Amino acid sequence: MAISQDGWGRGGMALGRRDSLALLTDLYQFTMAYGYWRAGRQREPAEFELFFRRCPFQGGFALSAGLGECLAFLRGFRLREPEIEYLQSVLPSTMEKAFFDYLRTVDASEITVSSAPEGSIVFATVPLLQVKGPLLVVQLLETTLLSLVNYASLVATNAARFRMLAGPDKKLLELGLRRAQGPDGGLSASKYSYIGGFDWTSNVLAGNLYGIPVRGTVAHSYVMSFTSAMEVLFPMQTLKPLDGDEPVDFLPLAETWLRQVCQTLQVPYDRVNHGELAAFISYAIAFPHNFYGLVDTYSIMGSGVPNFCAVALALNQLGYHAVGIRVDSGDLGKQAREIRQVLRTCSANFQVPWFATIPIAVSNDVSERSLEELMQEGNEIDIIGIGTNLVTCPLQPSLGCVYKVTSSVGYSLTRGIIALNPSTHTPLTWEANVCLRFLAGLAFMDLMALEEEPPPRAGQEVAVLLLGRSEVARRVTPTAVEILHRTYFKDGQVCQALPSLLEIKSHAQASLSMLSPAHKRLQDPEPYQVAVTEKLHFLLSDLSRSSQ
Amino acid sequence: MAISQDGWGRGGMALGRRDSLALLTDLYQFTMAYGYWRAGRQREPAEFELFFRRCPFQGGFALSAGLGECLAFLRGFRLREPEIEYLQSVLPSTMEKAFFDYLRTVDASEITVSSAPEGSIVFATVPLLQVKGPLLVVQLLETTLLSLVNYASLVATNAARFRMLAGPDKKLLELGLRRAQGPDGGLSASKYSYIGGFDWTSNVLAGNLYGIPVRGTVAHSYVMSFTSAMEVLFPMQTLKPLDGDEPVDFLPLAETWLRQVCQTLQVPYDRVNHGELAAFISYAIAFPHNFYGLVDTYSIMGSGVPNFCAVALALNQLGYHAVGIRVDSGDLGKQAREIRQVLRTCSANFQVPWFATIPIAVSNDVSERSLEELMQEGNEIDIIGIGTNLVTCPLQPSLGCVYKVTSSVGYSLTRGIIALNPSTHTPLTWEANVCLRFLAGLAFMDLMALEEEPPPRAGQEVAVLLLGRSEVARRVTPTAVEILHRTYFKDGQVCQALPSLLEIKSHAQASLSMLSPAHKRLQDPEPYQVAVTEKLHFLLSDLSRSSQ
Repeated sequence: MAISQDGWGRGGMALGRRDSLALLTDLYQFTMAYGYWRAGRQREPAEFELFFRRCPFQGGFALSAGLGECLAFLRGFRLREPEIEYLQSVLPSTMEKAFFDYLRTVDASEITVSSAPEGSIVFATVPLLQVKGPLLVVQLLETTLLSLVNYASLVATNAARFRMLAGPDKKLLELGLRRAQGPDGGLSASKYSYIGGFDWTSNVLAGNLYGIPVRGTVAHSYVMSFTSAMEVLFPMQTLKPLDGDEPVDFLPLAETWLRQVCQTLQVPYDRVNHGELAAFISYAIAFPHNFYGLVDTYSIMGSGVPNFCAVALALNQLGYHAVGIRVDSGDLGKQAREIRQVLRTCSANFQVPWFATIPIAVSNDVSERSLEELMQEGNEIDIIGIGTNLVTCPLQPSLGCVYKVTSSVGYSLTRGIIALNPSTHTPLTWEANVCLRFLAGLAFMDLMALEEEPPPRAGQEVAVLLLGRSEVARRVTPTAVEILHRTYFKDGQVCQALPSLLEIKSHAQASLSMLSPAHKRLQDPEPYQVAVTEKLHFLLSDLSRSSQ
Repeated sequence: MAISQDGWGRGGMALGRRDSLALLTDLYQFTMAYGYWRAGRQREPAEFELFFRRCPFQGGFALSAGLGECLAFLRGFRLREPEIEYLQSVLPSTMEKAFFDYLRTVDASEITVSSAPEGSIVFATVPLLQVKGPLLVVQLLETTLLSLVNYASLVATNAARFRMLAGPDKKLLELGLRRAQGPDGGLSASKYSYIGGFDWTSNVLAGNLYGIPVRGTVAHSYVMSFTSAMEVLFPMQTLKPLDGDEPVDFLPLAETWLRQVCQTLQVPYDRVNHGELAAFISYAIAFPHNFYGLVDTYSIMGSGVPNFCAVALALNQLGYHAVGIRVDSGDLGKQAREIRQVLRTCSANFQVPWFATIPIAVSNDVSERSLEELMQEGNEIDIIGIGTNLVTCPLQPSLGCVYKVTSSVGYSLTRGIIALNPSTHTPLTWEANVCLRFLAGLAFMDLMALEEEPPPRAGQEVAVLLLGRSEVARRVTPTAVEILHRTYFKDGQVCQALPSLLEIKSHAQASLSMLSPAHKRLQDPEPYQVAVTEKLHFLLSDLSRSSQ
């Protein structure tokens, strides 16, 4: 196997030169397609549903995400000549050439996709997507749609859980790029964490492509690259006061403040790391309006915090306000409380009121559990950076969506409810499931019904069966009924105005606010009710019996 | 924030239209770069090392992977005008314009990268990559290099562990595309699982881009889309015998065989699902040379296996050999044994010798633990498909590589060992760590030394200190010494012939064969020894003291 240098290493840009993801699928989709085609079934109408069987993270809900990318994929879906040639090279040579000619004509122009709006709360067994169209095409789309929805929804849900734990006021920064599954995994993580409720990302390309606000300051390597001898190496570092013209030599100013801070905090001046001081000074001079200190490279309380306070107070003297202080190791809650105490002390002692409220940012392998502990013990933290435990979703690293046939001629024949046109063998009637959400103030039930059934109305009693939980109908009366799905793709076109990422994010929070706290609980939530109408229940029972 | 439809949804192809990954990094790399630049340090020589602190999965080794993509990234590394403009729009407006002019000139032409060959066994604290060059550029590369190496090495190592468990003879099929972090996550998973020891992937695009052999047959949806009434719908299905011209009507032939099989296996003929039979027939007619049966859609022993045997025996009568039988649920080991028994019975009863050895393929959420159990109990399985537990690496979803400064003017000043050119402030000598591997038959120790030290030679005693485990030197005598790292990138060019993916895969197996079983044990391995020379030990101790 000879693979050219260009072929296997485009620096994470494997998808760079393609306009279509039609080959980003499992091979068996093409062998099945051939089976359908050989049996003359390629244009048979079919409907598949994409859903998950259990809510992720043992929780009570998920956020649907990835719809926008699915629609873009569908719009561009077709097999180009080099792709057809590749398929011919790997599939059995006994396959008829005419099949590949047929594949050349295949696109998504006869596909219809309905879905809840991206960012909606969704529940186990209720479809995230319904895909209708010719059997062969609907089958070919499976893996790519799953690939675009599974991780997107998983990480959006994970982000929403972190947001619920953190409450509405803390700022959440996603910084998982280096821990994700390569470049595109990192981009997906940034995009869908934002939808799920994060405020910022550290990922510059995600900022550039998606308009997500980006944030970042310094790493330990920056601090460590400065030493106490550094100041002799470089030209005098000066800074102009905010409202003055005459540059001030910043090093002696900061050193003067450091002596005062050390005295106030009773920290030995000669134990403070002067390389760290040099690093902070260089950063303050570079970003006088945006000074941020990373204070845990050496001793937090014996060096980092005094150095930060000294530089921030020197800046203050020149009219600038520091914007934050960051800790990236150890017991974050405890350290934040200690740092807040120091900031208050300096604020009082040096009569600088704003100093007491400088935002404290933390990051150190923050997980759901550690964040929960942080929040329970009360804390002085303003900004939380989360990487690994956000993007890799260690509590459940895969959502496990499936894509199942719910209607085809075969299925419908089993049900024995549709007539066939004897010449074309296509069904004369075509039915599909309708998904509804019942509300009584909050959402309390999702209902799947047949399209032919008169839709339940607000205020009207309706008989339903809880899916998989009972064989006995119960009666419920919603005060409001929402049609969950809209048609997003039809006749080869996206047929809804698509929201911006920020609008999707807002929709996600609005959607979550319609769910009771009992269902939103991160552990042992009360299961949300998913039901079917009596008529659909009987059909499903028949189907289940006939396939045994 | 208005984002165009094109901007946020290119169907997983976010990276599609870019030639550079220079923005695929954390924002703080640019704020730090500005800090260095403002301090006049942008061209200061620096060296960073990329390494992990603990072997993944509580194991004793990792496979290094991602080097090829890192080199491709470096070759294309520069910031283009729209990228510069974006950076200017999100970074503080007080930053000097001249910095962005400087960024416009930045590329990797002064960067030197050394590394072990891709696919080598690597150990905690020993660098996977050493990156030398101007401080500002070396810093800017951090996140992208981490993103390209972390997941690649993690999933290659995970694949190698599965391969070790399965032994050399079983065929391993990667089928994780739908469970990975989006399209590119799926591609990375396929590529690096192959390096780690998998034989095949289901991912067609990975096959097309990387030349990995692709495999796939049918899903349950295919089987379920056929019903017992299906045969009335479609034209008569016929098949030509391998050495004959006259097509045979396949359905009655298969039904005849089904009656015989049912009698032999004592399975009630009328309990067999005839939709499943129709599905198998359609597939056999489509792929007479490559017939594969997925036998667990309904009852495995009551329907799937009898149907498979009937169709395979009908094919056999026409001169074709079935190529496999697949189970995707339940107790895989037990079912494989039962299926093998049936195949043997049919083989004997119908005097078809090859029938007894038809390959059995299984897949059902196979994990390290379940594979270990399968292997311990002995089994009749020939092919194992692994998805979720391979690509999401649930035992440890992130490798956690870091990228640390090991040498810069600041560092070297601390060590006090280099002279500076007083006019340019650049060091007159420049030193780096050298990584060596000691062998005595098998590899037994990795040693880090200073470049200035005379390299240890085979057969010569050398004093070393085990890193982090002892302050006392010990003497070892390797029978062979390998220089672990080669220079892969220099003067803006890749300076080694890069191996094909298959060559990397072979190197990985060869590299693993140099490691003792005690180090390769999946649980509680004996730790591999990583050591430093006495001279490097003293330098590191000095450095550690000086930064406290």
